[in-house]
Amino acid sequence: MAEKYVYMFSEGSKELKNTLGGKGANLAEMTKLKIPIPQGFTITCQACLEFFKNPKFLEEITPKVEAALKNLEKLAGKKFNDNEDPLLVSVRSGAPMSMPGMMDTVLNLGLTEKNLEALVKKTGNERFALDAYRRFIQMFGDVVMGIDHDDFEHILQEVKSKIGSNAKDTDLTIPHLREIIQKYKILYKEKIGEDFPDNPKEQLYKSIRAVFDSWNSPRAVYYRKFNRIPNFGTAVNIQQMVFGNMGNTSLTGVAFTRDPATGEKQFMGEYLTNAQGEDVVAGIRTPKKLSDMEEEFPATYTELTTLMEKLENHYKDMQDIEFTVQEGNLYLLQTRNGKRTPVAMVKIAIDMMKEELITKEEAILRVDADKLTGLLFKRIDEKSTYELLTKGINASPGAVSGQIVFEPEDAETWSNQGKKVILVRPETKPDDIHGLMASEGVLTVHGGKTSHAAVVARGMGKPAVCGASDLFIDVKKKLFRVNNQVFKEGDVITIDGSTGLVVKGAAPLLEPEISGEFDELLAMADEIRKLGVYANSETIPDTKNAIKFGAEGIGLARTEHMFMAPERLPVVREMIIAKSTDERKKALEKIKPMQKEDFKGIFRIMAGKPVIIRLLDPPLHEFLPDYTSITTEVSLLRYRVKNGEDVKAELEEKEKMLELVSGLHESNPMLGLRGCRLGLKWPEINDMQVEAIFEAAVELKKEGVEVYPEVMIPLIGFISELKPVKEGLKKIADRIIRESGVELHYMFGTMIEIPRAALTADEIAQEAEFFSFGTNDLTQMTLGFSRDDAEGKFIPFYLEKGILEENPFASLDQIGVGKLMKMGVKEGRNTRPDLEIGICGEHGGDPASVEFCHKIGLNYVSCSPFRIPVARLSAAQAQILFPRE
Amino acid sequence: MAEKYVYMFSEGSKELKNTLGGKGANLAEMTKLKIPIPQGFTITCQACLEFFKNPKFLEEITPKVEAALKNLEKLAGKKFNDNEDPLLVSVRSGAPMSMPGMMDTVLNLGLTEKNLEALVKKTGNERFALDAYRRFIQMFGDVVMGIDHDDFEHILQEVKSKIGSNAKDTDLTIPHLREIIQKYKILYKEKIGEDFPDNPKEQLYKSIRAVFDSWNSPRAVYYRKFNRIPNFGTAVNIQQMVFGNMGNTSLTGVAFTRDPATGEKQFMGEYLTNAQGEDVVAGIRTPKKLSDMEEEFPATYTELTTLMEKLENHYKDMQDIEFTVQEGNLYLLQTRNGKRTPVAMVKIAIDMMKEELITKEEAILRVDADKLTGLLFKRIDEKSTYELLTKGINASPGAVSGQIVFEPEDAETWSNQGKKVILVRPETKPDDIHGLMASEGVLTVHGGKTSHAAVVARGMGKPAVCGASDLFIDVKKKLFRVNNQVFKEGDVITIDGSTGLVVKGAAPLLEPEISGEFDELLAMADEIRKLGVYANSETIPDTKNAIKFGAEGIGLARTEHMFMAPERLPVVREMIIAKSTDERKKALEKIKPMQKEDFKGIFRIMAGKPVIIRLLDPPLHEFLPDYTSITTEVSLLRYRVKNGEDVKAELEEKEKMLELVSGLHESNPMLGLRGCRLGLKWPEINDMQVEAIFEAAVELKKEGVEVYPEVMIPLIGFISELKPVKEGLKKIADRIIRESGVELHYMFGTMIEIPRAALTADEIAQEAEFFSFGTNDLTQMTLGFSRDDAEGKFIPFYLEKGILEENPFASLDQIGVGKLMKMGVKEGRNTRPDLEIGICGEHGGDPASVEFCHKIGLNYVSCSPFRIPVARLSAAQAQILFPRE
Repeated sequence: MAEKYVYMFSEGSKELKNTLGGKGANLAEMTKLKIPIPQGFTITCQACLEFFKNPKFLEEITPKVEAALKNLEKLAGKKFNDNEDPLLVSVRSGAPMSMPGMMDTVLNLGLTEKNLEALVKKTGNERFALDAYRRFIQMFGDVVMGIDHDDFEHILQEVKSKIGSNAKDTDLTIPHLREIIQKYKILYKEKIGEDFPDNPKEQLYKSIRAVFDSWNSPRAVYYRKFNRIPNFGTAVNIQQMVFGNMGNTSLTGVAFTRDPATGEKQFMGEYLTNAQGEDVVAGIRTPKKLSDMEEEFPATYTELTTLMEKLENHYKDMQDIEFTVQEGNLYLLQTRNGKRTPVAMVKIAIDMMKEELITKEEAILRVDADKLTGLLFKRIDEKSTYELLTKGINASPGAVSGQIVFEPEDAETWSNQGKKVILVRPETKPDDIHGLMASEGVLTVHGGKTSHAAVVARGMGKPAVCGASDLFIDVKKKLFRVNNQVFKEGDVITIDGSTGLVVKGAAPLLEPEISGEFDELLAMADEIRKLGVYANSETIPDTKNAIKFGAEGIGLARTEHMFMAPERLPVVREMIIAKSTDERKKALEKIKPMQKEDFKGIFRIMAGKPVIIRLLDPPLHEFLPDYTSITTEVSLLRYRVKNGEDVKAELEEKEKMLELVSGLHESNPMLGLRGCRLGLKWPEINDMQVEAIFEAAVELKKEGVEVYPEVMIPLIGFISELKPVKEGLKKIADRIIRESGVELHYMFGTMIEIPRAALTADEIAQEAEFFSFGTNDLTQMTLGFSRDDAEGKFIPFYLEKGILEENPFASLDQIGVGKLMKMGVKEGRNTRPDLEIGICGEHGGDPASVEFCHKIGLNYVSCSPFRIPVARLSAAQAQILFPRE
Repeated sequence: MAEKYVYMFSEGSKELKNTLGGKGANLAEMTKLKIPIPQGFTITCQACLEFFKNPKFLEEITPKVEAALKNLEKLAGKKFNDNEDPLLVSVRSGAPMSMPGMMDTVLNLGLTEKNLEALVKKTGNERFALDAYRRFIQMFGDVVMGIDHDDFEHILQEVKSKIGSNAKDTDLTIPHLREIIQKYKILYKEKIGEDFPDNPKEQLYKSIRAVFDSWNSPRAVYYRKFNRIPNFGTAVNIQQMVFGNMGNTSLTGVAFTRDPATGEKQFMGEYLTNAQGEDVVAGIRTPKKLSDMEEEFPATYTELTTLMEKLENHYKDMQDIEFTVQEGNLYLLQTRNGKRTPVAMVKIAIDMMKEELITKEEAILRVDADKLTGLLFKRIDEKSTYELLTKGINASPGAVSGQIVFEPEDAETWSNQGKKVILVRPETKPDDIHGLMASEGVLTVHGGKTSHAAVVARGMGKPAVCGASDLFIDVKKKLFRVNNQVFKEGDVITIDGSTGLVVKGAAPLLEPEISGEFDELLAMADEIRKLGVYANSETIPDTKNAIKFGAEGIGLARTEHMFMAPERLPVVREMIIAKSTDERKKALEKIKPMQKEDFKGIFRIMAGKPVIIRLLDPPLHEFLPDYTSITTEVSLLRYRVKNGEDVKAELEEKEKMLELVSGLHESNPMLGLRGCRLGLKWPEINDMQVEAIFEAAVELKKEGVEVYPEVMIPLIGFISELKPVKEGLKKIADRIIRESGVELHYMFGTMIEIPRAALTADEIAQEAEFFSFGTNDLTQMTLGFSRDDAEGKFIPFYLEKGILEENPFASLDQIGVGKLMKMGVKEGRNTRPDLEIGICGEHGGDPASVEFCHKIGLNYVSCSPFRIPVARLSAAQAQILFPRE
């Protein structure tokens, strides 16, 4: 056995985290730093792995453990199982990463019937000794041997009830404690079938084995699988006990080197005198603030804060420290990088950089990009108590409470009466838009981040939770069922579109918090990153937001969203219903001035920056009533006509609409008549849009506004689609520019969103002057996942089972979809070396995906305006980690 | 001008087709063979291309044309524009491939006012000469100068009407003809603005230019684009005129060296005495049979048939010959490989091989594999007159006439009354199956070759036309509209599922024809091919057919089709409705014995051959009522309850169903909860199926039947899906085999139908023991085409516009989907060198796709039983053209 499986704390260092676990490595590091800690030793993670290969391994390393124990006895000046001054230890698990399912701490190990009396004698505190023994039996029985915690509590309560109904643990007298100990031991024998071990070594090895076993507990295995944590194994830390409950000069507490809520540079923490660590957690007594300690125990306070400063300077990060004072002597039990709020995260990173503790690059890497979004919107206070009803897809950020309404008309009426309402629908359609406008937020059963509700809500800056598939709505009855409860019109709920939470009643909301450090951080990120950051936006408010958040261009303006405005819908329908090209052109002529104004608005805000406009993409039936609804209406009207009611005129009208809708009805609309296919079939639609774009552009150019329009043709799979569409539209663009007499730089390009386009990118690039990866659709088709169906139905299940590690619509599937993207970049640039390539799927705002885009050489990412800060930071982090020219 | 742009017929040969065009090359070849033909010369295709580059080019080659003309004058012993014995010529286009839009023939060119009288004198036949001149003016005016044909016909009719209402061309007297010629010339001047050219050279060069121009006529350009014909250019043939209308020893006719209808080796043909070629085509007089010629003109007959035999032996294929006898002298005007029926195609190939005219390989290559299917089923006689209503997707082969019904119940009732009915539905669902069983055939508006209707109809061997999207059905009113006509229940239509035709009334049908030569051909193909040919089948009748047509295995047995039988549906629904795993298992237990019997039936028929069984694939809502229908029913019932009707119980029941259906409802069911996703969510479904498979297998094995089951797990995109599913199912299989005590060879594999599976085939092959490309779904996802929507809506449009060259669901997209397949084969075999790979999409029966599969190294193709002969032949052809080990 050449390998060293057991380390004294003095033999390790923080670099040995994979050997000693996080806790062990930090205890070793503190020993090196001469921080006063109770000494001990660590059995390594490798020992744990060997144990799983060979159950006899524990016996094989016994000599090493014994030697370490001897060492510890020397350091402590006490002996294990000594009958005068016994060495007591704690046993804790400590893996390289913290995770649930691991064994809890066992304290006071080493106590026996015999040496208990020695402890009484030595401390002169019988109650303390008995209480320590009582706790040990309970912890060992529960944590190591798996006896139900409640069985112990039951005994405890039974005895306390003799004292009074409100008795506390501290009210227990010595006889009470002796009674409890006796009853605990009976319980133990009953459950385990043997006596409570009165031999400290037996106690120790049973505990070590239990720590090892906990590494493979179902909960831990599941957590590792889910979070992609390797099978490190766990270490075991055996540490001398110190006691914060040995009287009024003893105490125990936790402390932070900076405020974990705000990031302010000030010591924070709390402590309890005459208590053990678990009492702080249990919350039975109210702890004092760390600042009180300065008065109560000035010397200890000075010693503690000096150590804290030392540790922070050493670890170069905010520290979360556990400490105990035993009869005036301070011991640190643990130090680790402290958890913090997003606000504190940003502030601490920037402050530490300014304090020259860390470099600019380190400061940037310190910030979890994904958490930045939390700073920009209201959110449900996760610390408050609320009743979660279900979780849907976080479709448009922000949180809001309001009364439920089911019909857009009701939303309007109620809102006019001054009520705050949330529109709850199976899904929304363009017809519902007035209801969306009147609501504070929207909740839908179907659809994901790209559904109508999501897109419109984001455009309006309203919270939306979509795809809440556990909800069953009965619109007619104006109620929904979820979680075995029924909610009626007027009931209050809260939705959080940043997290997807749907909560009963009005949950407490937190206000957004933006600090100066936030801007400093992003400015630093901008200096470093190589990847451009554009916004997906087509409304004026969104585009203003895009600029505010730092967009360098518009990467995706979806013209169909301009079609959906309620006042435009009738004209759009005229266009769809048109029976001839001429009729269609007439309708389009009415839409054109509106679109032109839209484009002018966006161009103006984005002056000097590129604006990529995607031509009409969705299937036309999205602008018409829903197939099922209109079928139902017609059937009902027919029945009523048969019943002699006078609704013939209405029936005829609806029948006409049904014929139209069913002619456009599709089984899989995502893969049907949409995108460039529309423009090939009815070129006049694209023609109108391109006229509007270029007329807007040249008019602004004449006003002196710098305009860079780029026209994106969607859903290209074949070069033979792109070529005729581009040729026709380029003629229109050139004519308008020629006639205007101004100069205008523009491009025609395409989305790469159909796998075939990526596979034949060499061909596509012959015509496309730019590519934009439409990774929403590309993911759907490459993986065979319909987002609308999958996110509500089987993706959560796949994540739970570990079949998927990430939702591929939130974070790019780098292996599959990524392979196509790499092919697309390579082949595309083979044909056209200066090809501008970006991404405009939802992934453009996801940190891991931004890193991937950086690595494969994209020019920019484009994302929702509110994701821009995330993308800017992620792009800088990617450049730091994987520098590119 | 180094290049030779003008060839005398004596200078060419059949190998120069790309230079001389098909017609010119054959005329040259016949000259070489010393076949008596009117001599002449050919202006090459290259000259045509030069002409398009440089319009003056025609002038530049004038010296070459003049030289050739001089040569021809020598050969003919006549001079062009001679006033005693003028040389008359025909001018014809002749590209390397025949195509529409090219210039028609101009005959009798060289006639002028002056030399007309010489012709009269020389022939002593004024009427003949005048008629020739009349025809020339008309042809030149129409074909070369573009004057409307009807304008000439109008003059002709006007004059004829003076003779009588039934006057024929032959009734025209010399004065009539002179009047017509005069009026034709006036028309010409009126339309063209100058006199009819009285100069033969001018006539000639105008005609040559017109031939060149016709190469770029819109119709020709479109046809080339659509049929992927390169821009060869067209040649121009100038040939001395001979006349079959110079009296009773003159005649004209066409002849085949073998019967183009049956393939019998006997001379066939017809002729007209004293007539020109166009008279035969016009059908004014009834021609005589070639056999009559033997009596009427024995010497000519002997000469002709000797030449025919010579030509067939020379070309080694059945020849289609045009000939003219001028005053007893036989001239051949043209020879080409003759068009023939599928029956004749097979017989001629086999016969010629037996006659040792061609080799076995040549015989195999001679047969157009795609046409074989025509031999196996009834079909609409395309030569008959019928009114085409619309064309849908050819979903299940065979043709049938019947009365329209709209409701499955009506189909049953009518069928029980002895009526033959065709079920016409928007689409079919499992609920409609009794209606399908009672019908002769099915016609649907939605869906393609893989729709429910198509699959069930193929299983039952009934014709089906699907995706006839021009139809608007009103099921309630029991009528459909198409082509501005209304068809009611009971009206008769004919559908042809081999071609997709929907025809008004009862169209004449042709019976299938199978000959001994057909079997000989396929036996030869089997000796040559390297690619296995399997069948897609899961019913007993289909499996029997598969064996009959030569299947070497089952490549795809779709277990869901076994779920759809009407008596099983209630149990299947029980399974879907189940609220717990236990309930679901109970329902599955009822289905299992049925599935087991299904498998036994197939295994027995396929004894000794592999059977690949795909686990349940479609989304479960396919087994439930349609979402729109049930929504409508519930709304209607609610209205009726409100109206005081007593239908509450029914409403409650339907509401329950609605909740279930809407819970399973999907926007894009193709990409939703189906395939392996079902088995991951509800493993008991797969478990039951695998139990049924292996219990069936071991029981038969005990009976001595050789069984080779292969289990195919569908819709795999991630190795993390395949691994757990396979592991669970393999345990079941192994247990059943172990318990049975028999030995059984089996495999677990997967379909490669999601692009990601092909992209990560190296990973997938770690678990999959075989791959089967599911190219239907793979095409859908790679191209972003939902077949159900695209085939009815934009694919026909894409084909028409030349954006697509082939329907990618009929013939593999070799560039896009093919690239993924190549990656899949390469990466899969990198991991597992002996990986068995096949294809089971519809493409498995398409000749071009079979060739592709052969080339990329697949082990087998699997297709519908009736496509097996096509696949067997195509595989042999592929091996001949692209030999592989």
